[in-house]
Amino acid sequence: MYLGSWLSRVCRGLSRPIGKTTHPVWGSLCRSLALSSQRIPEFSSFVDRTNTCGELRSSHLGQEVTLCGWIQYRRQNTFLVLRDFHGLVQILIPQDESAASVKKILCEAPVESVVKVSGTVISRPPGQENPKMPTGEIEIKVKTAELLNVCKKLPFEIKDFMKKTEALRLQYRYLDLRSFQMQYNLRLRSQMVMKMREYLCNLHGFVDIETPTLFKRTPGGAKEFLVPSREPGKFYSLPQSPQQFKQLLMVGGLDRYFQVARCYRDEGSRPDRQPEFTQIDIEMSFVDQTGIQRLIEGLLQYAWPDDKDPVAVPFPSMTFAEALATYGTDKPDIRFGMKIVDISDVFRNTEIRFLQDALAKPQGTVKAICVREGAKYLRKQDIEFIREFAVHHFSQEVLPVFLNARRNWSSPFAKFIMEEERLELARLMEIQEEDMVLLTAGEHEKACSLLGKLRLQCAELLEMRGLVLRDPALFSFLWVVDFPLFLPKEERPTELESAHHPFTAPHPSDLHLLYTEPEKVRGQHYDLVLNGSEIGGGSIRIHDAQLQRYILATLLKENVKLLSHLLQALDYGAPPHGGIALGLDRLLCLVTGAPSIRDVIAFPKSYRGHDLMSNAPDSVPPEELKPYHIQVSWPTDSEEIASALPSKNLNS
Amino acid sequence: MYLGSWLSRVCRGLSRPIGKTTHPVWGSLCRSLALSSQRIPEFSSFVDRTNTCGELRSSHLGQEVTLCGWIQYRRQNTFLVLRDFHGLVQILIPQDESAASVKKILCEAPVESVVKVSGTVISRPPGQENPKMPTGEIEIKVKTAELLNVCKKLPFEIKDFMKKTEALRLQYRYLDLRSFQMQYNLRLRSQMVMKMREYLCNLHGFVDIETPTLFKRTPGGAKEFLVPSREPGKFYSLPQSPQQFKQLLMVGGLDRYFQVARCYRDEGSRPDRQPEFTQIDIEMSFVDQTGIQRLIEGLLQYAWPDDKDPVAVPFPSMTFAEALATYGTDKPDIRFGMKIVDISDVFRNTEIRFLQDALAKPQGTVKAICVREGAKYLRKQDIEFIREFAVHHFSQEVLPVFLNARRNWSSPFAKFIMEEERLELARLMEIQEEDMVLLTAGEHEKACSLLGKLRLQCAELLEMRGLVLRDPALFSFLWVVDFPLFLPKEERPTELESAHHPFTAPHPSDLHLLYTEPEKVRGQHYDLVLNGSEIGGGSIRIHDAQLQRYILATLLKENVKLLSHLLQALDYGAPPHGGIALGLDRLLCLVTGAPSIRDVIAFPKSYRGHDLMSNAPDSVPPEELKPYHIQVSWPTDSEEIASALPSKNLNS
Repeated sequence: MYLGSWLSRVCRGLSRPIGKTTHPVWGSLCRSLALSSQRIPEFSSFVDRTNTCGELRSSHLGQEVTLCGWIQYRRQNTFLVLRDFHGLVQILIPQDESAASVKKILCEAPVESVVKVSGTVISRPPGQENPKMPTGEIEIKVKTAELLNVCKKLPFEIKDFMKKTEALRLQYRYLDLRSFQMQYNLRLRSQMVMKMREYLCNLHGFVDIETPTLFKRTPGGAKEFLVPSREPGKFYSLPQSPQQFKQLLMVGGLDRYFQVARCYRDEGSRPDRQPEFTQIDIEMSFVDQTGIQRLIEGLLQYAWPDDKDPVAVPFPSMTFAEALATYGTDKPDIRFGMKIVDISDVFRNTEIRFLQDALAKPQGTVKAICVREGAKYLRKQDIEFIREFAVHHFSQEVLPVFLNARRNWSSPFAKFIMEEERLELARLMEIQEEDMVLLTAGEHEKACSLLGKLRLQCAELLEMRGLVLRDPALFSFLWVVDFPLFLPKEERPTELESAHHPFTAPHPSDLHLLYTEPEKVRGQHYDLVLNGSEIGGGSIRIHDAQLQRYILATLLKENVKLLSHLLQALDYGAPPHGGIALGLDRLLCLVTGAPSIRDVIAFPKSYRGHDLMSNAPDSVPPEELKPYHIQVSWPTDSEEIASALPSKNLNS
Repeated sequence: MYLGSWLSRVCRGLSRPIGKTTHPVWGSLCRSLALSSQRIPEFSSFVDRTNTCGELRSSHLGQEVTLCGWIQYRRQNTFLVLRDFHGLVQILIPQDESAASVKKILCEAPVESVVKVSGTVISRPPGQENPKMPTGEIEIKVKTAELLNVCKKLPFEIKDFMKKTEALRLQYRYLDLRSFQMQYNLRLRSQMVMKMREYLCNLHGFVDIETPTLFKRTPGGAKEFLVPSREPGKFYSLPQSPQQFKQLLMVGGLDRYFQVARCYRDEGSRPDRQPEFTQIDIEMSFVDQTGIQRLIEGLLQYAWPDDKDPVAVPFPSMTFAEALATYGTDKPDIRFGMKIVDISDVFRNTEIRFLQDALAKPQGTVKAICVREGAKYLRKQDIEFIREFAVHHFSQEVLPVFLNARRNWSSPFAKFIMEEERLELARLMEIQEEDMVLLTAGEHEKACSLLGKLRLQCAELLEMRGLVLRDPALFSFLWVVDFPLFLPKEERPTELESAHHPFTAPHPSDLHLLYTEPEKVRGQHYDLVLNGSEIGGGSIRIHDAQLQRYILATLLKENVKLLSHLLQALDYGAPPHGGIALGLDRLLCLVTGAPSIRDVIAFPKSYRGHDLMSNAPDSVPPEELKPYHIQVSWPTDSEEIASALPSKNLNS
């Protein structure tokens, strides 16, 4: 009773809101993370302690134990709660004269100090058990205590830590790591990766091979960090992925490769991106698209945490064309409907001008989504926000339509919708009384993209009003396939660029189009989508040197010399091969329900690429640049103001 | 019979001499690499083939199989040997008219082309079995064949590949990787690391945590690569180890950390070093030196390859002082004796001048090693070489002494050795008739270091003459402990520098000396030595902020500000902790008996840091340097000649 609410207060204090997912609490952490088929690891081997703080139960009564941990809380110099990564345990502070030195240590050490205690596991007095605390039936009658380290006054209370700004959390990352949520996230990450390794290495004969990160700049590698070498003017670059190396490994006969690969991408400042990130990188010889898909489904099923519902396989699959037409995106969140419907035929005879105009064009369409209960939950300003968004980002009109005409307050066009149009629309889209339809017109891709965005915005708005459209406990995987192999270049639409990368093999049935209408060729590329986020992508690669040369040189106008080593390798007996890469940070972020990938990385950079704890990147004295034959080109005054400003902001 | 010698020729062709270790051959590769306690992985899941080339036996007779592989060899258009990573199998080329297309494919494809064949496993005709080939009892009666890729004429014959220069091997690394030896090395590496992960993660509750590689320059980090950021004058650096991060993880309560960590060290050109390398990085809280040692012994025992003799634990341990006095080095190869003996007392009354001079000094000693059978196997020029080496590198005299006085041809001093000295020496060092004693005099450390080097040179010379002193099948681990915590700086011997790094905790019993005679303090540092190579090192760290500050600021005169984040972390409840790092490349090099660490790395750099396959590092156009606010400082003419010369050498 006297400690009744502690655990829950502690957990609330230490854990961050993470959406609606429920999480295990301290003490169940390690058990829930232990690999199901294996024994629980020995957490106390090789060290002084006999047990962890979270594991003691009534079954340990009478045992002599030694525990090490942090002082979480002390109450009236009688009790002390000790914490380690495994949980909390109550320590009885001895009150008799003979134990004065032990009492002194335990009473005087500040909170978050580190102590070692030895004593006996005893049961709590009747009525004082704490059913909410996994160790709530027992306490430790201490015989000896040792103060291992004192904690100075913290810059803030640990339990309030999560209310602090993220900048402060990043600056004192080592304190943030003590939180339940960070412990859970990092331990789950380790366990999931371990299970993936077991699946790949032990079950399916994959070979874990490390590839270099000091490499040669790739053609067009504008996002690659440079590393000056000691040879004047010569630079390594940090690769964005081991793509070339893994293909070369296939040529080298290492026919099942994987790597938990560190990759680098210099994108300047972008929210929720990291300059270095990790991918599960896989490549196989003699495989087709289906082979890779079944491998990955098995991998995720095997590695999936035991405290979540199991993953159902095979994952559904959708073509890129269908994803765009139905969800307006190449990474649909299929946990909810609100699909895009083509309603062009309903409005062939419309009097509404912007629909007329759109349909008059050869590629013109009218599209709509039905927001269930939108009429009930969305407000006038929501709809105004939506319409402004459409105008601002897509230069598109959006027309909200309601069954009940009285609701058509927000649209100047609504009164022009004829009754038969309204009825046909209601039939096609199965509109109910409380629903709202959002309608737009224009070229297929643009209209779909807009409605795809509005679909997500409406879901968010409805959830803010208390509806649950996207169950956070639901994990909906989806393959998206049959992407175009090439896209017109944004700057020069008559030229082509690779939709993904130039090593993707064309779809076999489109091969003939390569020489006539290359823009129509589909690639053997596949994306893996989870709850609306892309968590992986891969392809079957080109293994024919001649085809690769044609695509690089003739279609993409690339400088083939920069890739001569790869082209040459394809000539010397390259097997057919394909692969995939899963974004580990993003995957873990979704699995843990963390608000940012920074919450599943031990020492992340801020969104401006800073390490706020150590203050990296930092200045380097000019003499230390000399061996690398470089010097800083200081920007002019005006340039400097622009680039220097944000770096003064700690919250960067 | 007709294929009788093929396998052995193939293996000879594909494998490199690797000292005297014997290795498994193709076909036994995967079986010997499979984790002993687990089922053999499914190497043919998710792909077209039903089996690997190396696994078919008489037990498969009658089975319909599909195989994919490279054409290793073809004989008289009747047989073809197909190869994959798993081994070799003989394919019977069909001769009947109806199979003309299959015959055409199999007869026309050049060697090293990639084919897929389907057919039946049949037994070889009696007398044609090949007992040296794991699949030697069977062959494949082919029904269908598909040419998956043609191989152009290779720049050299694969079987002669190993005779080529290493530069050529590195340039065509993807071909080199097809060799048995590279397949074995990389697969063994993957398996050993996987077993280490199982031991750490699944058995002992360690958490695999990735730490950043874009970090802040550490004080004195002259060997750290720089990575320019987009902020003018600000640089990341690539850390030499995750040292700071792993200590911060301990402060963060992640009390058992490990990582297979990529580390970077820019040492310019050094043989058998790589600019990026991998270490098994481990840190634990609440642990002492013994705890770490037992952990590592268990780790190596668990991960040790099944095709080698098991590792015996615990490993022997030796103090630094003893290692120096007995073996003249901090990394003794204890597979053989030839220990250093202090024979100062024998020569107290010597007439030999250089011994007299040495013994007259306060720190003077006379030391010797006994080279067993040295009189029999070493030649006059060997001894001349040894004496010149001693003079050249140590400015020391070396005196060879033989029991049989007739052998004392090579020493002008020998005749001055008195009979009682010779007898006393013989008694002390147990000299036999055919032995040779090498004797030197001088200050303890210098004399020991010299004899330590000569001990290894003599071992090499004796082995060249056919003796086996260092059994390559023997793996002798050794802990070296009780190193000094500080060393006098080479340039300024009155100042101290850390013997290893400034975070190493002092030996508890020497703590008081820190404030009076710091040069006498031993550190809680431990090195792990295998067969005379250092394969790991670690320490118990300082967890007391005040002590750490004293050592950094007062003793080492470091700029404490650069490490303020670490010092601050120690103030906020840092637990006692310690750790270790094992050099994975070096360990694998010793385990596989490879001549260089380049042979256990998939894509190594040349000793000048070049990727000879892709030609990294490479030039970067000036406009691509602009976002990083750097420009190249081209060296002057004279500087340029010096630095440009070696880069023109392909064999770099």
